[in-house]
Amino acid sequence: MTNGFRVIKSSIYSRARVGELTTNHGVIETPVFMPVGTQATVKGLTPDQVKATGAQIILSNTYHLMLRPGVDLIRSFGGLHQFMNWNGPILTDSGGFQVFSLSAMRKINQGGVTFKSHIDGSAHVMTPESVVDLQLGFNSDIMMPLDICTPYPATEEQTAQDMARTIEWELAAYRHWKENQSGQLLFAIVQGGTYPHLRKACANALTEVGFPGYAIGGVSVGEPIESIRSVIEAVSPMLPDVAPRYVMGLGLPENLRHAISHGIDMFDCVIPTRLARHGQFFVEAGRRVNIRNRQFFDDLRPLDMDCDCLACCQFSRAYIRHLMVAGEMLGATLLSIHNIRFLVRLVDEIRAELKSK
Amino acid sequence: MTNGFRVIKSSIYSRARVGELTTNHGVIETPVFMPVGTQATVKGLTPDQVKATGAQIILSNTYHLMLRPGVDLIRSFGGLHQFMNWNGPILTDSGGFQVFSLSAMRKINQGGVTFKSHIDGSAHVMTPESVVDLQLGFNSDIMMPLDICTPYPATEEQTAQDMARTIEWELAAYRHWKENQSGQLLFAIVQGGTYPHLRKACANALTEVGFPGYAIGGVSVGEPIESIRSVIEAVSPMLPDVAPRYVMGLGLPENLRHAISHGIDMFDCVIPTRLARHGQFFVEAGRRVNIRNRQFFDDLRPLDMDCDCLACCQFSRAYIRHLMVAGEMLGATLLSIHNIRFLVRLVDEIRAELKSK
Repeated sequence: MTNGFRVIKSSIYSRARVGELTTNHGVIETPVFMPVGTQATVKGLTPDQVKATGAQIILSNTYHLMLRPGVDLIRSFGGLHQFMNWNGPILTDSGGFQVFSLSAMRKINQGGVTFKSHIDGSAHVMTPESVVDLQLGFNSDIMMPLDICTPYPATEEQTAQDMARTIEWELAAYRHWKENQSGQLLFAIVQGGTYPHLRKACANALTEVGFPGYAIGGVSVGEPIESIRSVIEAVSPMLPDVAPRYVMGLGLPENLRHAISHGIDMFDCVIPTRLARHGQFFVEAGRRVNIRNRQFFDDLRPLDMDCDCLACCQFSRAYIRHLMVAGEMLGATLLSIHNIRFLVRLVDEIRAELKSK
Repeated sequence: MTNGFRVIKSSIYSRARVGELTTNHGVIETPVFMPVGTQATVKGLTPDQVKATGAQIILSNTYHLMLRPGVDLIRSFGGLHQFMNWNGPILTDSGGFQVFSLSAMRKINQGGVTFKSHIDGSAHVMTPESVVDLQLGFNSDIMMPLDICTPYPATEEQTAQDMARTIEWELAAYRHWKENQSGQLLFAIVQGGTYPHLRKACANALTEVGFPGYAIGGVSVGEPIESIRSVIEAVSPMLPDVAPRYVMGLGLPENLRHAISHGIDMFDCVIPTRLARHGQFFVEAGRRVNIRNRQFFDDLRPLDMDCDCLACCQFSRAYIRHLMVAGEMLGATLLSIHNIRFLVRLVDEIRAELKSK
């Protein structure tokens, strides 16, 4: 079976659809939520625990992995799957976002970006081609091209300039990827900030080429939720129905529902594990509550009565609260398992609904 | 079957023996290494992961649990097993050691000890009877009596005085335990520091009563290893063959072998998890090495070629080094699993040897 996407069913009530994305490491049913393992580990979880949440695919990050431990080591394992012992699909982000949010002394030029590592200050270069090469080395199933993630807010002029350069880089990445076919899929990233005509111009330039998938980038960077939703509503129809659509950095339950109804197929976010480390967990309707609250001191119930995750099947709110209050690392692990399972289950349920009607 | 100990086989080459200790939550094969879960969690591991190391019994701590989350909460669960979801045997230490090492403003009197919590400075009292009551509330399978753990070094006078009070407290604990029979076993703790005649006096007074088991306390408190070994060699023969012998706080492989050959049946130590959090792991012959060493950067082998733990079956030294260097909590979890499994397996192997000849 050729790697790529096919729509299984489209809703007659909204733009939502169910699909299958075939990769080198298996088939992903969409819509799908993808937990993040930035440094080749979903924080605090073994791969078995990640698998048990029902996660079909995880994310990792080119910027972080190129700096530490470096692509050569990962290549010596045969790729990221063997390195971290995850045998399902992996998507690697290009690191464009991280270069602009974490590193120091960035300099953009025609060919790419030079920057200093946030870890040790060492100098590095990323070009559209080198970022593809890194991901070929990681052997990730879905690769993302180098892009410029314009911050929010930004002027129209700045946004247009970043967008134009991003298109150049993505076309260069595409050519380089085409010359190095390996079954790995290269997605495009649509930039253009909050300016619909810039989004349109970017989408047009990229869809003309025909990438295996399209991401909406530059959202969830600090702008209000209404703005994120407007961008999704505007950009999704600009993208071909035959390719998967991926909104980067989206993870709150209310946002997933909205995006799916507007034709989005894929999501990733650090939020389930980050919230967990701060004691927060999801309950019904996607509300977030903090386990440290005094009311949970003697609460013998599970985190969420409807949840089937390891944390909810084996432990009480009172016990997990005790762990967090006592500074025990198992607390964050259990809350992470629950939060990831919550989002995976939410998307599973939406997918099942879409299938059934 | 009545709870208690029976010797299955005694070595003809040393004082070592194989035994079975029956408790409310199952039978423990001895010799046995017991991982420590001070705050009702073996740091960084789920109970399933602890079980998978082959651990038969875990330790928890009365001092820590009485302060946080308190006995009432744990009692409301029906005990510690349900609270932390560990269905095997649990031994709770009395907290005598912690009162003297962690708390502030200790005052000892005839009836017990008053102290201030190291967490919030609140005032508390421990008496021989209250410490039994706490452990009845925890429903631990093996309870330890309140004792005074004399620091090292200590004068003979101080040691004798502490020892005399410890005996009084232990006899009071015994009477209180007898009045509240529940199948939980109460062990005695032999104190007396590095003074053989004080150890002898203490052992005599306690063995006369007939406890279900005997611990050697006050070792591993900073004295040289030769001194620990001398105490074990001296005290073990003072204890009845029909009861299990437990050396508190012992966990290095070389010390376990020695103690078992001198008739010791049970051990506990925080060392496997504490070493792990500092990046250290056990290799052949019980040597400790640090995973952060540069030599492991590109080492594709498991932590220990002979080990069957989750960490060794699924991950490489290079990957676990990456986790530790990157500050990822999964690193400490994997090293903890390995270190516990290493000690459990070591004791399993010694037990198998003893059985076979």
